[in-house]
Amino acid sequence: MSLPLSDRGLLLGDGLFETLLAVDGVPVDWTEHMARLVLGCAALGLPAPAEADVRGAAQAALSTAGLDTGRAALRITWTAGSGGRGLDRPEPCAPVLFATAAPSPAPAGPLRLITAATQRNAGSIASRHKTLSYLDNVLARREAILAGADEAVMLNTDGQVACAAAANLFWVAGGRLETPSVDCGVLAGITRAKVLAWAKAAGAPAAEVAVGPDALAKAEAVFITNSLTGARSAQSLDGRPLAEWPLLAKLSAALG
Amino acid sequence: MSLPLSDRGLLLGDGLFETLLAVDGVPVDWTEHMARLVLGCAALGLPAPAEADVRGAAQAALSTAGLDTGRAALRITWTAGSGGRGLDRPEPCAPVLFATAAPSPAPAGPLRLITAATQRNAGSIASRHKTLSYLDNVLARREAILAGADEAVMLNTDGQVACAAAANLFWVAGGRLETPSVDCGVLAGITRAKVLAWAKAAGAPAAEVAVGPDALAKAEAVFITNSLTGARSAQSLDGRPLAEWPLLAKLSAALG
Repeated sequence: MSLPLSDRGLLLGDGLFETLLAVDGVPVDWTEHMARLVLGCAALGLPAPAEADVRGAAQAALSTAGLDTGRAALRITWTAGSGGRGLDRPEPCAPVLFATAAPSPAPAGPLRLITAATQRNAGSIASRHKTLSYLDNVLARREAILAGADEAVMLNTDGQVACAAAANLFWVAGGRLETPSVDCGVLAGITRAKVLAWAKAAGAPAAEVAVGPDALAKAEAVFITNSLTGARSAQSLDGRPLAEWPLLAKLSAALG
Repeated sequence: MSLPLSDRGLLLGDGLFETLLAVDGVPVDWTEHMARLVLGCAALGLPAPAEADVRGAAQAALSTAGLDTGRAALRITWTAGSGGRGLDRPEPCAPVLFATAAPSPAPAGPLRLITAATQRNAGSIASRHKTLSYLDNVLARREAILAGADEAVMLNTDGQVACAAAANLFWVAGGRLETPSVDCGVLAGITRAKVLAWAKAAGAPAAEVAVGPDALAKAEAVFITNSLTGARSAQSLDGRPLAEWPLLAKLSAALG
């Protein structure tokens, strides 16, 4: 399969995606990812795909990639389709669905974070969704790699801590677990929600905060979360060594 | 021609584009557009295309579309190509070039502007370039259409007036011509530069300013510029009627 050159996802970044873990051919947290995709469609003004179609594309992608067993990264892409003059979508808009799958080995090596200069756009609803306009995240990650680190911490344009380039962000300060609130231009991560639920059930709820980088600079431990790698402890932030949160192993076990 | 589903332009909005006017098969301001594309590549860390390749693709696109005569909108797209794990580009990065052409009729009807809620990201260099991550512009235009207007005025995340969704912005206040400075997260428009040069030569240089929407609310006249439509006068802004700048016809004649 390939896409025509007129596709608005390609030309303008007009569309959405989801990245899920699949284990032995079974997508993890399917319902949550589909719900988020539907919310993203509403935010962008796109019709939503039929869940059965997405499921079919996902299973076909896993089979085609020979990933009906083992751990796979499954990506669902929903572009705004072809047509329309310049920025304007055609009426009706006819989105295009596709799915791809790739092996998803557990991440190896240290996780060194740096704070990127590239910021999240607090002035666009797009910053709360997984859109095909992901260049700011690519640029932030690139800053990290060029600085000899592995992943970027992104602030938003109001100067608040937002997230990592491809993950949500948590830290522990004075023993308290904190994470940026979704209002900070943050994707409502599925694993982020699971961490929040776990912490609440454990009687030590995490605080969803809107804070500047000073809060991070005082953190004892930092970890990032996403659907592919769960919770992953950072070894350093901007060159400052970090400890591993004593509860991280317990959290990781709970995340499965 | 079509693109593989692994293309980073499609998956992540990782790439650049240029839109040019072509008249009777000859692209207008070719040198300026190529120079801007090269600058964009440097900003994004992408290798730049060979100019001869771009020229060949452009001419082929015009011929294929039967637009070797008349006015055509020519679009050059330069994606970051396929490969790489998640956000990280492969090493070496192998970008993909393509060009498309479509008829470009002169715009008809009034130009009613509204100020959009969707803002330009002042915290990303991407906002100064024509990138494949153009969703914020799509969303701003959509706000305008849904409000019964034709085009959106975008502020940046610092609250400064930036540009229209698909054009640069000029206004006349107290008889003085003004436009947002490039530092306001604005594309360095080719036609914008021609207007600035024309005004300077006419002995009434335009001011490049960093101002809030109050400045626009006091303007007597507003016009937008881009490579396809030249300078186009706005009939209203947020419902407030605007006059046409007395010098606009003279400017349009100079732009050709």
